[in-house]
Amino acid sequence: MAVDKYPSRNGQQAQIMERKDPVVHRNPTFSEGPLRKDEVDSFEKNGYLMFEKLFNDDEVSIMKNELQRTMDRNREREADDVIKEPGSNEMRSVFEIHKDSGFFQALAKNERIVKAAEQLLGSQVYITQSRINFKPGFKGKEFYWHSDFETWHTEDGMPDMRALSCSIVLTDNYEYNGPLMLIPGSQKWYVSCPGVTPDANYKSSLKKQETGIPDNDSMSWLVDQAGGRIDRATGPAGSVLFFDCNTMHGSAGNISPYPRSNVFFVFNSIENKLQDPFSGQTPRPEFLANRENIEPITPNK
Amino acid sequence: MAVDKYPSRNGQQAQIMERKDPVVHRNPTFSEGPLRKDEVDSFEKNGYLMFEKLFNDDEVSIMKNELQRTMDRNREREADDVIKEPGSNEMRSVFEIHKDSGFFQALAKNERIVKAAEQLLGSQVYITQSRINFKPGFKGKEFYWHSDFETWHTEDGMPDMRALSCSIVLTDNYEYNGPLMLIPGSQKWYVSCPGVTPDANYKSSLKKQETGIPDNDSMSWLVDQAGGRIDRATGPAGSVLFFDCNTMHGSAGNISPYPRSNVFFVFNSIENKLQDPFSGQTPRPEFLANRENIEPITPNK
Repeated sequence: MAVDKYPSRNGQQAQIMERKDPVVHRNPTFSEGPLRKDEVDSFEKNGYLMFEKLFNDDEVSIMKNELQRTMDRNREREADDVIKEPGSNEMRSVFEIHKDSGFFQALAKNERIVKAAEQLLGSQVYITQSRINFKPGFKGKEFYWHSDFETWHTEDGMPDMRALSCSIVLTDNYEYNGPLMLIPGSQKWYVSCPGVTPDANYKSSLKKQETGIPDNDSMSWLVDQAGGRIDRATGPAGSVLFFDCNTMHGSAGNISPYPRSNVFFVFNSIENKLQDPFSGQTPRPEFLANRENIEPITPNK
Repeated sequence: MAVDKYPSRNGQQAQIMERKDPVVHRNPTFSEGPLRKDEVDSFEKNGYLMFEKLFNDDEVSIMKNELQRTMDRNREREADDVIKEPGSNEMRSVFEIHKDSGFFQALAKNERIVKAAEQLLGSQVYITQSRINFKPGFKGKEFYWHSDFETWHTEDGMPDMRALSCSIVLTDNYEYNGPLMLIPGSQKWYVSCPGVTPDANYKSSLKKQETGIPDNDSMSWLVDQAGGRIDRATGPAGSVLFFDCNTMHGSAGNISPYPRSNVFFVFNSIENKLQDPFSGQTPRPEFLANRENIEPITPNK
């Protein structure tokens, strides 16, 4: 097995260590991307970047229709890649949409997002995971703080921090409907989590994560490093949020009448393909972590 | 029994009716209070009023010490008036503090808040309920939308809408640590709730309210009336929020490291004393709804 640069869930105490990889992988071949220098620097500093209305209202309208169709098609399907709310039968997520329908397949190659991902990761990219998320009004549940990388590394065998998430926001996100919260700068630190990973952890962790949970002291420390700041990804429908694989994020519940939905792609560097999970366990299923027939994306207009 | 102007929980369908009482009870005897005309008008329109730093940092510091002492004194006490978080042993509230300690007794008579209450309610006032609230960081639970009056009327026999809550905020309230959310204008409507009240409902409802819950359609309607607005009571420690007994409010959970605490007084008009509960059930205990030895407050400097 490869050297584990980022050990976690080894039964040890919680621990904070410095990130061993750059946040922005500067590579002259991909430096002519769509992002300005100040945008790249902001991503490097804060661990995320929000673009207001990268997609216009017509495009959002089409995406919402496609999201609805995908939800309808999957509503009665009881399967691991269709996630319901804990305590109810409301749909929360449908996975692997970039393989499923022509529309989301094309969206996943859209050059507005792919070229930004290439510029930040300094290489060609592919998709390790995709999903649509639907957080209903009135009863959307919270999602506790976590670093995606901690899970992807431990459970999926992602070797380095060289991946990012791209969230295309399909509903207006307000302060009061449970927006994604991010701790700026947290991507520079790795919180090694206590505990060990149960077998087939993903079956429960997608509803409510119980392992890979950062401890309170580490969380307080990260927020202190940020000068007490916790940012929220609010903005109108059509906005796009990019955030680093190790940025600590979470969201409170949503008791407002306004549902939230988004399309979610995880871009990984083609030089950072998944290996055996560092937990030593069986890899998670393909719908959560693509391993088969990996090819770099050719961006579409 | 008196005529029930605001029936609820009669086993009927949810229903929205117009408020039958004024929001501001204008009375020349009490019109010389501390609030300016625009502040009174704003309370009437929005159903709440926030004063930034009505108490200064030294006063807040004293209040926080007193809150801590009260919490410490009650921590090991298993009693109905000491409320723990659902699913943990964390303290959430201690009730009836205005009778308990000299400090909170005096604070409950502070003229800065009492005279504002008199001005809005147009009469002398007394306290029907008081408490300190502590919402811990990381795991503060949500509190779903509700009108206090719906409960006070149905379970406590408060006849008219002529009461208000005063919340003295002891910690900075941010967008991201579960601030109180209010629907402006919602005080003008009464949402009659479906269902019936279980016996001794208060023993569970103080942790998680299950009856007197407005239905989704009514909630959406109220937010539509507000032009889609949901306001948040954010502000620095020492701020004071007044809100009408019928203003629809709630709060999301708090996963931030920042706890929230406040002191809470409910001022009722001396002309609006509690009667038999309109549910026909046994009145809730004295610590939740004062009935004994009611005297109007004489404000202190």
